[in-house]
Amino acid sequence: MNQLDLVRELAEKATTKIVMLVADGLGGLPLDPGGKTELETAATPNLDRLAARGTSGSSIPVLPGITPGSGPGHLGLFGYDPLEFKIGRGALEATGIGFELGPEDVAARGNFCTLDSAGLISDRRAGRIPSEESFKVVERLQGVKIAGVETFVKPVKEHRFVVVFRGKGLDGGVADTDPQATGVAPLDPQPQTAAAQRTADVAKEFVRQSRAILADEPKANGMVLRGFAAKPQLPTFEQLYRLRAAAIAVYPMYKGLARLAGMTLVGKSQSLDEQIDELARHWQDYDFFFLHFKYTDSTGEDGNFADKVRRIEELDRAIPRIEKLRPDVLIVTGDHSTPSLLKSHSWHPVPTLLVANTCRPDGLAKFSERDCLRGGLGMFPAKYLMLLAMAHASRFGKYGA
Amino acid sequence: MNQLDLVRELAEKATTKIVMLVADGLGGLPLDPGGKTELETAATPNLDRLAARGTSGSSIPVLPGITPGSGPGHLGLFGYDPLEFKIGRGALEATGIGFELGPEDVAARGNFCTLDSAGLISDRRAGRIPSEESFKVVERLQGVKIAGVETFVKPVKEHRFVVVFRGKGLDGGVADTDPQATGVAPLDPQPQTAAAQRTADVAKEFVRQSRAILADEPKANGMVLRGFAAKPQLPTFEQLYRLRAAAIAVYPMYKGLARLAGMTLVGKSQSLDEQIDELARHWQDYDFFFLHFKYTDSTGEDGNFADKVRRIEELDRAIPRIEKLRPDVLIVTGDHSTPSLLKSHSWHPVPTLLVANTCRPDGLAKFSERDCLRGGLGMFPAKYLMLLAMAHASRFGKYGA
Repeated sequence: MNQLDLVRELAEKATTKIVMLVADGLGGLPLDPGGKTELETAATPNLDRLAARGTSGSSIPVLPGITPGSGPGHLGLFGYDPLEFKIGRGALEATGIGFELGPEDVAARGNFCTLDSAGLISDRRAGRIPSEESFKVVERLQGVKIAGVETFVKPVKEHRFVVVFRGKGLDGGVADTDPQATGVAPLDPQPQTAAAQRTADVAKEFVRQSRAILADEPKANGMVLRGFAAKPQLPTFEQLYRLRAAAIAVYPMYKGLARLAGMTLVGKSQSLDEQIDELARHWQDYDFFFLHFKYTDSTGEDGNFADKVRRIEELDRAIPRIEKLRPDVLIVTGDHSTPSLLKSHSWHPVPTLLVANTCRPDGLAKFSERDCLRGGLGMFPAKYLMLLAMAHASRFGKYGA
Repeated sequence: MNQLDLVRELAEKATTKIVMLVADGLGGLPLDPGGKTELETAATPNLDRLAARGTSGSSIPVLPGITPGSGPGHLGLFGYDPLEFKIGRGALEATGIGFELGPEDVAARGNFCTLDSAGLISDRRAGRIPSEESFKVVERLQGVKIAGVETFVKPVKEHRFVVVFRGKGLDGGVADTDPQATGVAPLDPQPQTAAAQRTADVAKEFVRQSRAILADEPKANGMVLRGFAAKPQLPTFEQLYRLRAAAIAVYPMYKGLARLAGMTLVGKSQSLDEQIDELARHWQDYDFFFLHFKYTDSTGEDGNFADKVRRIEELDRAIPRIEKLRPDVLIVTGDHSTPSLLKSHSWHPVPTLLVANTCRPDGLAKFSERDCLRGGLGMFPAKYLMLLAMAHASRFGKYGA
């Protein structure tokens, strides 16, 4: 029996509240061998107090040694095996700019490029076109009309955009049209399976009309399309866990990931304080709250150890306000590590803390990577975290008699 | 998505170097309850220093409680799930004597036996025939000729030998001919699947001609064949990890296992010092080096605790020479435990150490079974070790966006 079937079988209705606070990229590394990580450096009296009350551990986002993107990182936290459920590149890009994909949509990432008079790519990034210019180019593409299909073109940044085709019988199995070189023409959209023939035809027609519309553009007169993908079919939190789930996030990517799991987006908060305002405001309306804190990741990506330390301390200061709501289960974790030493996501385990009245003491008094190694949750795949949340929230029946 | 597909998708070219030092049967047990294991008894200043710099853990070769042979033990270390990939007995025996199996080969283990005048087995070990006598018997079997098939007969030890049939359309699905009793005749080779009919016929003809040739042998006038098996189809290190891999081993079995994973055998070293000479000599030519040290296993099998301690100390003294080459990732582990108390392989977790600049400190200062329990790698399936090696060697891209 797989994990999701098990969950569906055991989940019971209850009135308990679960808060999952995801500090993006929380785990770190010391700058010097044997030194302290960002979390170990930060003053975190509140998290330390929770560590003494709760159970800690180290979660592995995908598998040991595997560095996840935000998609697989969050899928694991939400209880979906990130090796089984995949969010195609186009779908993730659309999600990242806040485009809500529907069941009949296929999304692709687009890159504007410059074509010479022979139709060959002379610049793969359209002369490093600035966002304000390319946004106007995207605007012109709203004129594309394809019979039987609704087309959405949305700007991302610089030469990048997203195109979404909406219609019956579309399929993500279309090959990239990017030849990955200059001096050659973009490839024609080719179906990789019979089911994707129509989608390939639609994409071809989109490219044909775009070329005509953009013929007079000095930089962005061509395009390549990549990562064709439909919306991933995830069973929702309601279907799986019988949880009414709310997401309180600032950035479109994380809102989008939460929507894919069927969570309701709540509020338009811009800061952690405002996010907690929203949490308090909607406390009675939902059973599960996903709170996303971005800045532990972005400071790590910037390679700014001191800033990441400060962001962790900001997170720590927010804890008492969350505690005041008396969640039955409070989880503090990350979707992956982002050590400022590496300036990127990494594969290292993520310090994780679960607080509930049913926690077995593990003798820890601090929340840190080193302490988590000795914690009662051990080293565990992130996809099991929701099982623990459900158990501590008294929302699971017994398995077998 | 399974582990090997994931590896193939994420592996990137790089110039980093990985050394995997496998101390065969490294893990041990104390002689007295609560005492020290062989590794805990040994003076290992170099390994302890590495433990302080790197990350330690306990690897589980197959599953908890499962004692592996050398085949599954090494498959796990190389990243192949030992429950999915199997090396048939005949193929492993051929590998163990240094016979390099080709894609058209089927190998079987042979035991000489003594048949009475009625053709019934009177001695299942051919009167405990000594190796020098049985080697001559094997020599006589070189006279067997089977149409369309090349036949190789190789001595192993005492009454044991290996036979390899090479030809198109052969298949390992042939049942053992050993009736496991005296007073009965050896069984005829029977196909277990339709695809193995021809192989069964070939084996039958081999037995028929052998009986004729050996009719005048006083002890070894008959034989039984067991463990028919083709070469296992393992994707190579190059295909999976994009690693040019070299194996530096003394014993044929481990050279053979490395060859099955597509590694290149390097040098003809007889001692650990010579193995490290080879390592230095070929440092520029390969990305991954498998160094096999046999004597931690053989002393354990002998039940010689003190000798195993000495062999571990010999291993420890070799460490600085390996460090001097500045590998990006240095792993010290074993393929299984061989406690001298048990005089055999065992199922106990294997102390494992990984050293790289991207290690998160786990606060250990000693390399031992007890310390590894508190290490940053946790308790993990051996098949994940190569994932960690690849990550720390900056040879993996990100999974998902």
